[in-house]
Amino acid sequence: MSDGSIDQSLTSWVESTGGETDFPIQNLPLGIFSESKGRRRPGVAIGDYILDLPAVIDLLDEGWREDLTQPVLNAWLSRGQGAQRELRLRLAELLSDARYRDDVEAQLIGRSEVRMHVPCLIGDYTDFYVGIHHATNVGKQFRPDNPLLPNYKYVPIGYHGRASSVRASGEDVIRPSGQRKAPDADLPEYGPSRRLDYELELGIWVGSGNELGQPIPIGEASEHIAGYSLLNDWSARDLQAWEYQPLGPFLSKSFLTSVSPWIVTPDALRPFRNRLPSRPAGDPQPLPYLDDPADRETGGLCIQLEVTLVTDAMRAAGMQPHVLSRGSADTAMYWSAAQIVAHHSSNGCNLQPGDLIGTGTLSTDNDEGLGSLLEISRGGKQPIQLPTGEERSFLEDGDEIVLRAWCESEGAVRIGFGECVGRVVSAA
Amino acid sequence: MSDGSIDQSLTSWVESTGGETDFPIQNLPLGIFSESKGRRRPGVAIGDYILDLPAVIDLLDEGWREDLTQPVLNAWLSRGQGAQRELRLRLAELLSDARYRDDVEAQLIGRSEVRMHVPCLIGDYTDFYVGIHHATNVGKQFRPDNPLLPNYKYVPIGYHGRASSVRASGEDVIRPSGQRKAPDADLPEYGPSRRLDYELELGIWVGSGNELGQPIPIGEASEHIAGYSLLNDWSARDLQAWEYQPLGPFLSKSFLTSVSPWIVTPDALRPFRNRLPSRPAGDPQPLPYLDDPADRETGGLCIQLEVTLVTDAMRAAGMQPHVLSRGSADTAMYWSAAQIVAHHSSNGCNLQPGDLIGTGTLSTDNDEGLGSLLEISRGGKQPIQLPTGEERSFLEDGDEIVLRAWCESEGAVRIGFGECVGRVVSAA
Repeated sequence: MSDGSIDQSLTSWVESTGGETDFPIQNLPLGIFSESKGRRRPGVAIGDYILDLPAVIDLLDEGWREDLTQPVLNAWLSRGQGAQRELRLRLAELLSDARYRDDVEAQLIGRSEVRMHVPCLIGDYTDFYVGIHHATNVGKQFRPDNPLLPNYKYVPIGYHGRASSVRASGEDVIRPSGQRKAPDADLPEYGPSRRLDYELELGIWVGSGNELGQPIPIGEASEHIAGYSLLNDWSARDLQAWEYQPLGPFLSKSFLTSVSPWIVTPDALRPFRNRLPSRPAGDPQPLPYLDDPADRETGGLCIQLEVTLVTDAMRAAGMQPHVLSRGSADTAMYWSAAQIVAHHSSNGCNLQPGDLIGTGTLSTDNDEGLGSLLEISRGGKQPIQLPTGEERSFLEDGDEIVLRAWCESEGAVRIGFGECVGRVVSAA
Repeated sequence: MSDGSIDQSLTSWVESTGGETDFPIQNLPLGIFSESKGRRRPGVAIGDYILDLPAVIDLLDEGWREDLTQPVLNAWLSRGQGAQRELRLRLAELLSDARYRDDVEAQLIGRSEVRMHVPCLIGDYTDFYVGIHHATNVGKQFRPDNPLLPNYKYVPIGYHGRASSVRASGEDVIRPSGQRKAPDADLPEYGPSRRLDYELELGIWVGSGNELGQPIPIGEASEHIAGYSLLNDWSARDLQAWEYQPLGPFLSKSFLTSVSPWIVTPDALRPFRNRLPSRPAGDPQPLPYLDDPADRETGGLCIQLEVTLVTDAMRAAGMQPHVLSRGSADTAMYWSAAQIVAHHSSNGCNLQPGDLIGTGTLSTDNDEGLGSLLEISRGGKQPIQLPTGEERSFLEDGDEIVLRAWCESEGAVRIGFGECVGRVVSAA
């Protein structure tokens, strides 16, 4: 187990870990939680429960006490993957070996009884654009014959995002106001967005960082990744269209970004990693600073993704959520997580523990797994039909979007990411 | 003195405050300093000295002790302009009234003996683009007949920047590497930037913040501004040209941003504020959420700006710095600081105490005050001639750029911002 893998046959004595849970003993993601009046502190998800880490620190390592009793995980993650791996293996032992059951079981709390928070104090949030089918779909709406710009297959395109408005799953989406100008209008006006959208992404949490001026070599980049969450890059398309030239998206994004609260580790994902998809014939090979043999073999993230929608009317009628998309991350991503990290630091920019990096919207190359309403409704030209008879081109007040992700593979126990949920409420 | 103004006739008992200092008793900017082995703590600049604030806390207000002994100013600035004003007036009293001289003088430290730091833990750094002559000059290089995009005169254009790589004046500029593609090259390559540039900007420090989802009305925006610094938005033009479509500048900027360490307050700038420049005939009036009568009267910042260059050869020959530009901020800015703050929060984005906002490059409408080499050398086509016989289109290793700013007005004591200095060193 020295590489952080937990045996696929291992079972936990915790109830609720046998079935279709997102959080079997092979997952063990960390997060930050609080009870109704308690302080924020680290916990690990197991079945329907969360294990209160400060409460079992005596069973872990006294040297970890300070970092594992903080209200954010930055200090812990700064220790790098070695410490994370030690903790992971020790937790697997505590949660499987019956000898520890009495002591540990007393520190389990039902997950439905706690509130989850953003797991880190995010120094910087960066959003990438590595979903090539998304980039193609969006590009086609502007340039039908030439959807991808000339730099796309050389540069992992990214831009700085807003850290202050990143919130944990469950935060309401207050419809943003801003300047918008209809194509046929003479003048822009300020008011609530009429083209509010979601974007399905993965979030990458930075573990150990790098010093300013010291790029992270591609061969070491994966060691700087603490783990992954779901990320919803809520977007106001009308604000975006009017504001984004020449410096990129700004207020169309910075009103809210939601993340699922659990950091799923690279070790938990190990059974679900695969070769990077081969590049289509004629595509350039990555420049040397982005090319690594090990990453080529295991850089693909075989993570299943799903987005559902519930409207107020559906909720009132007790209907099931409407599935907007189903797809997989690995074939959606033109650049791997390691390539993203190496590129981000390639100019000497210092990444810091707890930084958050979005992949960009992850869409499939067919219509089943489009990661935004902008794509699904073809820029609003083809509204989707809901079972209530309602139509949607973009989000209406009361609409709730749920992102889910999980991994399945022959011979491996299924693991999941939990949910990233947000419900739209009317403008302030 | 209830508005925070300090009488223009007031003099300090501190030596070195009588002449051409940037820091007479009418200025009193806060910063964070440390001595060789001491901790970081707040100080106020006066003449050639810094007053150690924790050391005189007994003469200030016991209720301020916690916030004024921190290694960053975030908590102090979060109190808003009322508290800043009280501190400012009390400091003016201590530094002018001979009764306090003995107690206070013992806590003065020569500024040449301390190291200055970034004054806040910057949660988010945002860069705007309100320098209309800069935007015009840069736009002309791409679109000679139509340099400004259609949104420019409606939207204060801005984009998210990188907070982790903001450093205080004096930090070396490690030449960044990155992807660059010459216009006549078939393929991009990765290597040290060949078109390294500076950008002359003002930095705006956020004082009190706003809650997520609660825009700051334009009439209240100036109350959220704690003060101003100089800001150098170092830029790698070759990286920028290749990477910036479609999501804006990224690695071409995030390798370093330098700020001068003193936060010059709105109260100190009061004698140097004037009417916003009238918009040229035909330009639209600001939308209502950006329009405020008080801001129209006093939103203009009559701040003089200067940039100088010293090369290795000039330094070896003992030559004076070469003046690259001289201009004024007020006529350079198409949008005021209050308009910047109101726009930034207009979608509900939460600004936080200690956030940093750049104005964008401030150039005059003539050739005397161009704020970047990109403009001065016409994109590299017209190198400047230096007294050594050297030429410069962009920065070479060893080049040192110094930004300076000061305010002068009839009947007012001159105040200054100090310097924002950076010297280029070769790629790592």
